[in-house]
Parts: sequence; structure tokens; C-alpha cells
Amino acid sequence: MTQSVDQKASAAASATSEWLTAFQEALTARDADAAAALFASESYWRDIISFTWNITTVEGGAGVADLLRATLDEVDPVGFRVTEEPAEDDGVITAWIAFETRAGRGSGLLRLVGGKAFTLLTTLDELKGHEEPVNDRRPNGVRHGAFRDRVTWAESRAREATELGYTVQPEVLVIGGGQGGIALGARLRQLGVPAIIVERRERPGDSWRERYKSLALHDPVWYDHLPYIPFPANWPVFSPKDKIGDWLEMYTRVMELNYWGSTTCKSAVREGDGWAVVVDRAGEEITLRPRQLVLALGASGLPSVPGFPGREKFRGDQHHSSAHPGPDRYKGKKAVVIGSNNSAHDICAALWEAGADVTMVQRSSTHVVRSDSLMDLGLSDLYSERAVAAGMTTFKADTIFASLPFRIVPTLQIPVYNAIRERDAEFYRRLEQAGFDLDFGEDDSGLFLKYLRRGSGYYIDVGASELVANGDIMLAKGQVVELTEDEVVLDDGTRLPADLVVYATGYGSMNQLASDIIGQDMADKVGKVWGLGSGTAKDPGPWEGELRNMWKPTAQEGLWFHGGNLALSRYYSHYLALQLKARMESIPTPVYKRAEVHHTE
Amino acid sequence: MTQSVDQKASAAASATSEWLTAFQEALTARDADAAAALFASESYWRDIISFTWNITTVEGGAGVADLLRATLDEVDPVGFRVTEEPAEDDGVITAWIAFETRAGRGSGLLRLVGGKAFTLLTTLDELKGHEEPVNDRRPNGVRHGAFRDRVTWAESRAREATELGYTVQPEVLVIGGGQGGIALGARLRQLGVPAIIVERRERPGDSWRERYKSLALHDPVWYDHLPYIPFPANWPVFSPKDKIGDWLEMYTRVMELNYWGSTTCKSAVREGDGWAVVVDRAGEEITLRPRQLVLALGASGLPSVPGFPGREKFRGDQHHSSAHPGPDRYKGKKAVVIGSNNSAHDICAALWEAGADVTMVQRSSTHVVRSDSLMDLGLSDLYSERAVAAGMTTFKADTIFASLPFRIVPTLQIPVYNAIRERDAEFYRRLEQAGFDLDFGEDDSGLFLKYLRRGSGYYIDVGASELVANGDIMLAKGQVVELTEDEVVLDDGTRLPADLVVYATGYGSMNQLASDIIGQDMADKVGKVWGLGSGTAKDPGPWEGELRNMWKPTAQEGLWFHGGNLALSRYYSHYLALQLKARMESIPTPVYKRAEVHHTE
Repeated sequence: MTQSVDQKASAAASATSEWLTAFQEALTARDADAAAALFASESYWRDIISFTWNITTVEGGAGVADLLRATLDEVDPVGFRVTEEPAEDDGVITAWIAFETRAGRGSGLLRLVGGKAFTLLTTLDELKGHEEPVNDRRPNGVRHGAFRDRVTWAESRAREATELGYTVQPEVLVIGGGQGGIALGARLRQLGVPAIIVERRERPGDSWRERYKSLALHDPVWYDHLPYIPFPANWPVFSPKDKIGDWLEMYTRVMELNYWGSTTCKSAVREGDGWAVVVDRAGEEITLRPRQLVLALGASGLPSVPGFPGREKFRGDQHHSSAHPGPDRYKGKKAVVIGSNNSAHDICAALWEAGADVTMVQRSSTHVVRSDSLMDLGLSDLYSERAVAAGMTTFKADTIFASLPFRIVPTLQIPVYNAIRERDAEFYRRLEQAGFDLDFGEDDSGLFLKYLRRGSGYYIDVGASELVANGDIMLAKGQVVELTEDEVVLDDGTRLPADLVVYATGYGSMNQLASDIIGQDMADKVGKVWGLGSGTAKDPGPWEGELRNMWKPTAQEGLWFHGGNLALSRYYSHYLALQLKARMESIPTPVYKRAEVHHTE
Repeated sequence: MTQSVDQKASAAASATSEWLTAFQEALTARDADAAAALFASESYWRDIISFTWNITTVEGGAGVADLLRATLDEVDPVGFRVTEEPAEDDGVITAWIAFETRAGRGSGLLRLVGGKAFTLLTTLDELKGHEEPVNDRRPNGVRHGAFRDRVTWAESRAREATELGYTVQPEVLVIGGGQGGIALGARLRQLGVPAIIVERRERPGDSWRERYKSLALHDPVWYDHLPYIPFPANWPVFSPKDKIGDWLEMYTRVMELNYWGSTTCKSAVREGDGWAVVVDRAGEEITLRPRQLVLALGASGLPSVPGFPGREKFRGDQHHSSAHPGPDRYKGKKAVVIGSNNSAHDICAALWEAGADVTMVQRSSTHVVRSDSLMDLGLSDLYSERAVAAGMTTFKADTIFASLPFRIVPTLQIPVYNAIRERDAEFYRRLEQAGFDLDFGEDDSGLFLKYLRRGSGYYIDVGASELVANGDIMLAKGQVVELTEDEVVLDDGTRLPADLVVYATGYGSMNQLASDIIGQDMADKVGKVWGLGSGTAKDPGPWEGELRNMWKPTAQEGLWFHGGNLALSRYYSHYLALQLKARMESIPTPVYKRAEVHHTE
């Protein structure tokens, strides 16, 4: 038995070595076709800025050959090798690899089937000569010796705070100081890229603190680490919102970010090869002149509040879910929550817990998945205590995640959700019996693809579904036709008495939010942000195969989009920061096949 | 070659296994003499609360037998085993071990020479049924499901802040909110022990921030980690004081400590089986009634300012080093710094850097060791990037450190300092040529032992010594006999003109500091704090073999001392917290051989 495991490992090692040798030879010979011939007919090469200075996936031999023809001379890739023993499972060999380019050092993950590449992920991890000052490169902190007019750390930080944005211009301005802006700010600081993060709320973490009081992360701790400082071993699985707020505030301080709270961005216009950005910093108008502008405004745009007739007549409280203060003042009151996704469920449950009389208005079908099941079947191989105990690191997990080309992710996810449906059959039966309209995505591929395609349409159940199933949260279905002084009226004539109406009706697009800052013309020029082009609801084609405009060059020089949940912010901030650093250092960054713009919203 | 390494490993494994089996059999048979016979004639067993509910070292077979006779029945030790492959080096087998007692789970380090135990360290790491909620025991953060009148994390924290110390009494009161109090507070929180930390300064970290501006840690980052949240990979080797201040402040927040800043302790008296402690919290007088009182007032006591004649006549600035504001206002002025240890050197160098005219008054010989040499030869096997890369963890390094009985530490340290003297011969020669009085400790055992014995008498050179050697910092030697209006006068008649006099003259004893709070009688009862009883200067005998009164039961029930540098605070806070937790849970904690009190200061 041991021998057969050894033999399998040794076969995997030699197959990988053979493939990498041939691949490297083809690259060195600048023979794109020979390299392409090493890929299976169905195959995917996803590159994150190492060959392409883009985030892009090419398909099949033709795609590979095209990418290589365009990039080989400039990239000059060398040293493809494995970094640990390849593993074989079910005919698929998985190999962790590393290589170098002219500009830097890269790594990746290769999957071989039948001796040919099925998937290849390549990422650029650091720029030569601009490595991060970590571990054996960490700063000394103080300069030993004696030097006239020494400047201490505190003095130097104070000087930076006084000068940056006033007498010294930042290289990068990040608009939006949630987890996305903060993670990116930390990466930029380590790379020595002068950056300011502006945030309209007062303190880091307020974007969490100011939301409804029962909010907690729906993603577990192992999935949520920020770069550099992972959550400690005692951190709760699901961070309460105020606790994550405190962590972000602490992180911003100890990572020495230049974070301008209480600062609103009024406008950003191109000026020379950079930007003139007018901000209001706690009442003072300041014009910043960064070379690069990053919009990290959150994965969603502005609150969407439907213009139902009669809204102005309604006498009770009404507000969007983002402005919902929590349930405390609604005990014994009648609450109608319009919407049936995450926020709607959370708010309904919290209102019920506080003793309100709650009705949820479901306007369209919703994907629901129980938190436990999502953790056990969806995440736990990569992000769980079990994975950590088995030696999985956050970087490895992220890389495995990133190595799956978006084209095949649905195929991989459908069986997961089939298993979840089977495991929770009784749960789903009860929900449907209560009249709840369920879906699992148009192709039954579940939650993660809904998130990538449209960023909405689901609820991760942490308790509210039981209240829906047992009728504690009353369910109404249909479209709202009007509000009266004290009712919500639906299209089937149902009249729901209400002291409170919460519009859990989602958010506008990121593009719309951007247009408020960069203007409609420029927003139209860069086009839709987020979505893969899957041709499913709210994710119009054509297929792009990457998240549109996210973390990569856009149609507007110097304009970038950053965001996503904590995990995506963590992972992609690395590569966005390197792109910004390369431009600051005038390292050539020829972009292979920048995605075309198809949608202006 | 490979085989011989394998053979050596296998011989080490079987020798260890044989020893552990025999040891366990003797323990199970309650045969103290049989167990004692497994120890070499020169041998040491250091126990940290696992057998003894004390921190104590016994020597030789007789010591072992005495310890076991007193403890075996209550402790009921079982399951002695190795936790990884033992290693052999130079005839010494080193084995990481684990075991269980009736109360908890322990671990340790065993060194065998010629089949017998030369050193054994045993520590109690957790109490059964009271394991820390970390990793797979971490809290969920939110309770999934729907519950009437749910209390959120923020509400629960706010309630605790309102109640604890007012309507609910803490189990433990920690006086002193530096790194010691903070590290202990974090441990206690994880163990569910309600605790308040009071600190007279406003914010956590102020004990660092308020010191002279050029101060940075003299210990490197790998040695300085706090429990639970290690410094990140980008943290500087030597933390500037304000940066460590920020870290402590943020740590206090995210570890959810009940930290009362701006709070002075006025008095503490016994009341029943606990304490009545009067504190002034930002102007409000509050009586706290904890069961346990921990003094974490810093390894040093109150500033010691010698009562030199003429002090009142001196017209310039004069202050103790702890009140020194930094050099900025002394450019071009004449500064006299009295003392020649760490603070004196740091302050002299900073004054010189700022352009003052500086004289250091050396009153007695000083141990100087260059920071680089201390790192390379003194610490780097355990605490360095190299050690981390070789798989050394902080816990392992701490355990190895703790496993060396204090009796033999000088023998181990002398060769280190001999090597340092050789390496830095030219450096020492130049210092002596400049007239500087050097020593390496009374037995040439160097810095760490000076720290353990008396907590003073040394300088870790980060640059000032060069200024002394080259005369940029002028050196005067002798005792101060008086101050005039504008001079410091020495016993040899030297008159040093001065605009500024800094008393870098050290601190009083911890005992003296304690007496301000608990009264002189109780301070006398518990006796001297710190020091090993080595019979060297400022560390009077008799030999105790452990740091007097630190982290272990004192002669006063319910009174504890905690402190030391970051490393000692980190390591021993673990065991102090467990002792406090055990008492809170009424787990029997019979103390073996509480140390006698010999000195009342």
C-alpha cells in the first residue's frame, strides 16, 4: 500500500517534471505553438499579471498560443519548477509551481490530465528589486548608531500626516475605506507606494458599525483574514459587525495607513497623466493630485429604493435596509420588510426577536443555503479549522480558489449544491411549504456564482428561514403597487398594515456609484463593473471569463476598481498593488487583451 | 551517513521511551525513590504549576523524591510520552514531552545524559474542562437561530463595561497596564476570568509613549510577541516606542480587555478572603472587591533620584530619566547625565544627536554588549528569522529558555559572553581606552543574568558606545558630591558645567512600589520581589533558584506579582492566569514548598 502511494507520487512527479521541462523549453525557444501543444483541447490558462499585466483567462491551445505570441519577448519567463511534491488524485495531477519573469517572481498551480495541462494559473507575486520588507527583509525600526538630527518613527509619521495630500502628492488615491480600501492600503504601504485612503465615515470600521445591529459576517473567519495580520486563534467564526469594525480600525493604525475619515470625494477629473480629485475633509476642501485613482466603493452601489406610489403618504418609519437602525424601537409594531435576500432575512429575524410583528414581501425567487451546509460542503476543504490542521494556508486556499477558471466553476459547483439540497431536503421542503420561492441559480450552481454574476439573490441562513418556515415571519408574495398612510399594498390586492417599512431592495451598480465621482461619460467609457458575462439574470454577455473591470486595467488609464468580500479584497489587493507599484516604478506593463466594454451601466 | 543519522535518532527515541516508561511506572506506583533514581546525581527538575502549583526547581534525586512524595497523590500524573522525535546532540538527548494530571494537561522538555535525566521541565498548559476557546473551540460569534431579546456582541460588551467593577465585582484586579498587565489580561479573558486592569496613564501603550523620544525596544521582534497575536512579518526588528504603544492599545481593544485608564490605585487591604481596593478612576473614587490582586507595576519600582546636596540651588533643568522629554530643547546646551546604564546611554546619544554638549557620569562599572552580538550569539538560536525559518516557534523557544534551571544558566552564559568579548575585542578595547569601566557581571555571565539578578547594570549598545569611545559623549567618573547653581561636582573635584542634569539613576525596588499600595507591613511579609538569591550585587542570598515572588504564590494569600520584559510577560502570564483560574474554579491547588521570605525590601 505504501509502495503504491509512493509509486503514484513518483509518477506524478515525473509527469509534472516532464511537462514543465517541455513548457520551459518551448518558452525559451519562443515557440508559442509548441507550448500550446502541451495544453489539452479543453484547457484554461488563467494569468494574473505575470505574463499579461492583466487578469485574464485564455482557452485551449489557440488561446495559449495567442497569449504567448503577444507576451513572450517582454516577459522572458524562466525557471518553471515545482515547489513541492505534485499530488495525483483521480487522474488529475496538481502541482504547485514557481517561475521568474523579467520583472519579478511568480507562482501558480498546474493541473495535468493525461500528460497535458487542463488548467494553469500563473501569478506575479513580487517585483524584482521591490520585494516587500517582510521576514528577513523587515525594517530595523531604529537605525543603530548616532546620527545628528535623528527623526524618530513618531516624528516621521507625524510629518507624513502633515505633508501627504498637502505639500506632497500621493501616488495612489483610494476612494472608499472599507475592508477593500484598507487591505489595498496595507499592500501599498508595504510596497512603498504613497497612498491616501478617503472614507466618508469617521473611523475605519464604521462601514460595518453603522449597519443594523444584529449583523455579523456570513463568511467564517478562515475565509476572512486580512493580509499580514491574520485573525487570532480565539477570533469568532462569524465576526459580529462591531468586532470586525474594531479590527479594521486597529489594523489601519498598526499598518500605518494614511486614512482620511470624514472625507467625501466630490469629483475626480483627468489632469495630465493623473487626476485632480476634490475632496471635503471634515469641512476643508482639498484638491489631491494622485497619479492613480482606485475606486473601492464596496461591491454594491447606492441604496436602491423603489419609487412606490404613496411613499410620501406613509406615516410610519420607512428606510432602506442600509439605514435600518435595528429593531429596538419596533417591539409590538407591525413591520413590513420588502425583499427576501440576506439583509431582508437578517432584519426580519432581528425584528421578530425584538417582538415586532413581521411580514417579509418576497418579490422574486431567492437562493437560500444553510450556513452550516455552506461551510461543510462549500468551504471547508479550503477554509476551516480542519483545513488549517491539514496544513492548508490562506495563500494556498486562495490560490486554489483562483486557479479554477470561471468557465468551469459552475460545473464544479452544481454537485456541491445538489449535495446541499439532498442534505437539507427537509429544510427546503418546509420553506417551500410555507410558500417561499426558492431557486439555486439559473443553472443550479448556487451561491458563489450568484455572488460573482450579480452580487445578489441569496440568503445564507443563520436562523431566519426557520421563522419563515414556521410562520413566525409572515410571508407575502408579489409586487408592491403602492403605500397608503399605514399599509403596503401588493398587486394581488393584499394589504399589509405597517408601522415600519424596510426597503431591503438592494443596491445600484458599482458603475453608477463611480459615475457620481468620475462623471457619466467616463463611467460609460469604462463600462460595467463586476459580473462575468454569463448571460444569466443581471449578468449580461458576452462572456468575459473574469470579473469585469475588477483589479485590472480598465478602459480609462489610471482608473481602477477594487472591492469584494474580505477574501477577494485580501487576494486581489496583492495583484492590484503590484500593478500600481510597477507603474510607479516605470516598469513596462504592456497589457495583453484588455477586455472590451459592452455595457454602460 | 543517512543511516547513521537514522540510527542516532532511533537510539535517542528508544532511550527516551525507556526513561519515560520507567518514570511513568514509578509515578503510577507512587514510588518516589524509583522515580528519583532516574535522575542523574547532578540534575534539576523545574516545575511550573503542574506538580507543585508553584514555580520551583528541585535538585538531584533527593529533591525529586521530596517533590514527588508531597505531590503524587494529588497530581496523579499519567500518560508521559514524547510529542515529537527526540534529538541527540553531543551526548544529550532532548525530548519534547506531554502528560496529564488530575487537573489538566501538561508538557515539557526532558534532557537525558547517559540514560538519566539531567534536566526536566514540566508545565501545566491547560485545565481540564476549562480549555481556552481557540482554534476548533473558538466561539461562534453569533448564535445562529432566532431568539427573543437577543443581545448583540456590542451590547454585551457595553453592559460589561457598565457593570464590571460597579454592580459586578471582578475576580481579578490587575494593577498596572503595561505589557505585563495587558498580556495577563488577555490570558484571563480567554479563560473566562472576569478581570479589570487599572493603569494611571490614559491609554494602553502610554507607559512607552511617555518615555524619551528616541526610545526603542532593545529586544528584537521575535522575542517580543504578545500572546495570541504575534507581530506581523513586516514589524520592525526593534519597535520604536510609539509604535509598540499603538500595538498595545490596539491589542487591548481587540482582545476585549476591561482596561481602566487614568485610574490610580490608592490602597488595597484584605477584606474577608479577598481585597478592598480603592481606586480613583478619572476623578471618581471606586472601591473594587476582587478576590485576587495582581501587581504588574513594571519590573522596576519608583524612579530613584539621589538626594545630592545643592539640588535645590541648580538653576537649569533637572529630572529623572523617566521624566526626560527628549533632546529637542537642549541643542547647544550643556547636559550632564548621571548614570551609565541603558537609559543613560540612550539619553546621552539622543542629546548628542540633537546637538547638545553631553557628559556622562559613570559611577560604577557597567556591562555593555553590542546589540548585533547579543542577537547573533545570545538570542538567534531561539529568537530570530533564522530560528523561525528552521521551524522554531515562540512557544518552543520560550520552553527551551524556561527549561534551563537557573543554577546552570551562568555556566551556559559564560561561554557566550566569552565569544562576544572575542568578537568585539576591538570595541571593548576602545571603550576602555576612553576610560569606560566595563564589567561582564561578577562571574562574567553577562547581560541576561544581570537582568535576572538585579534588573540593572548594563547597556545594550545601539550606537552610544561609539560616541563614548570617540569622545563625542564626554565621560566623567566618580561620585557626585553636590550640585551648584550651574555645575555638577564630583568627588575628585571635577566640576561639570550644566544646563541640564538627567538622573539616569535607576529605580527603586518592586517591593517598595508595592508597599505604596498594600502597606509596608504586607510588603514586608511578602518580601523581596525579583532576583534569584545568587549572592551577587543587589541579589542577596540565600539561593532560591527562581525569581522571588514572580508569577507564583506569595506569602500573602491572593497577592501576586507579574511583570518582566515582553518575553517573560508573555510566557509567565500563561501560568499565572491558570493559577488564578484554578482558584476561581475551586480546583485544589496545594502549593509545594512556597519559598521562604528572607528580605524585606
